[in-house]
Amino acid sequence: MSNTNTDRYFEDYVAGTELEVGSVCMSEAGIIEYASKYDPQEFHVNPEKAVNGPFGGLIASGWHTAAVVMRLLVDEYLSSASSLGSPGLDELRWLAPVRPDDKLTVRARVTASRRSKSKPDRGLIHTRIEVSNQNSVMVMTMNAVNVVACRKP
Amino acid sequence: MSNTNTDRYFEDYVAGTELEVGSVCMSEAGIIEYASKYDPQEFHVNPEKAVNGPFGGLIASGWHTAAVVMRLLVDEYLSSASSLGSPGLDELRWLAPVRPDDKLTVRARVTASRRSKSKPDRGLIHTRIEVSNQNSVMVMTMNAVNVVACRKP
Repeated sequence: MSNTNTDRYFEDYVAGTELEVGSVCMSEAGIIEYASKYDPQEFHVNPEKAVNGPFGGLIASGWHTAAVVMRLLVDEYLSSASSLGSPGLDELRWLAPVRPDDKLTVRARVTASRRSKSKPDRGLIHTRIEVSNQNSVMVMTMNAVNVVACRKP
Repeated sequence: MSNTNTDRYFEDYVAGTELEVGSVCMSEAGIIEYASKYDPQEFHVNPEKAVNGPFGGLIASGWHTAAVVMRLLVDEYLSSASSLGSPGLDELRWLAPVRPDDKLTVRARVTASRRSKSKPDRGLIHTRIEVSNQNSVMVMTMNAVNVVACRKP
């Protein structure tokens, strides 16, 4: 997958293709901002109380981790020329806590691609997403599915 | 599940229990704000271009829908007294577009609960989450898993 993601279509997501999508740093302020809005549990929003909580300190909402991963996928993996949305995903796993100042690195591997029979201008791609931190600890994985337009309908 | 969620523990999440969790309205401004940060695809952030896009208009990022559903679950289903995080979830499905001014209603049904053998002060609960809009169209479903503390360890 050597082409840039501004010119990437269904044909480019060949099963077996691997890509280091990019990295993102998680700040304490960002963790608290996201969670205050969408997941205000104490271990996501209150650093003092989180110390005595189940994770021994503040951790990011898993939905926040998924959101910053999505941003990297939009910027570096999916293409504005061909992305047509997603019907869902499977086996989203939050494997280890994400803490302030963690640097997350996202890898994507195309596990399957199938051209649509009913709508032959597009296809479904299946992608294994793996997210690890600066200590090479896997923190999140999921099996994503995306609808992608073909270059040659 | 008649008790309020400030006094809800593993023992209260009995398999078969159903709950109408609550409702939330999606605004165009909110859809654009979330997606600008985490999922800036044109059909999520640009109402004009979205008209000619794959969904015929602006739609919410699926991650945004999941986030507002999580907020309702934190406020009305999970308990600050007992919620200990989540190892992940299965079969997240975005079944129909969520558009500006849609009112989403969330229902939860406990499908299974199992006390931990290795850590008997807590248990795992499995919850089927169903999200429908004001026209009773199912827009999102998922099978959530949560770790919840027991009332009587």
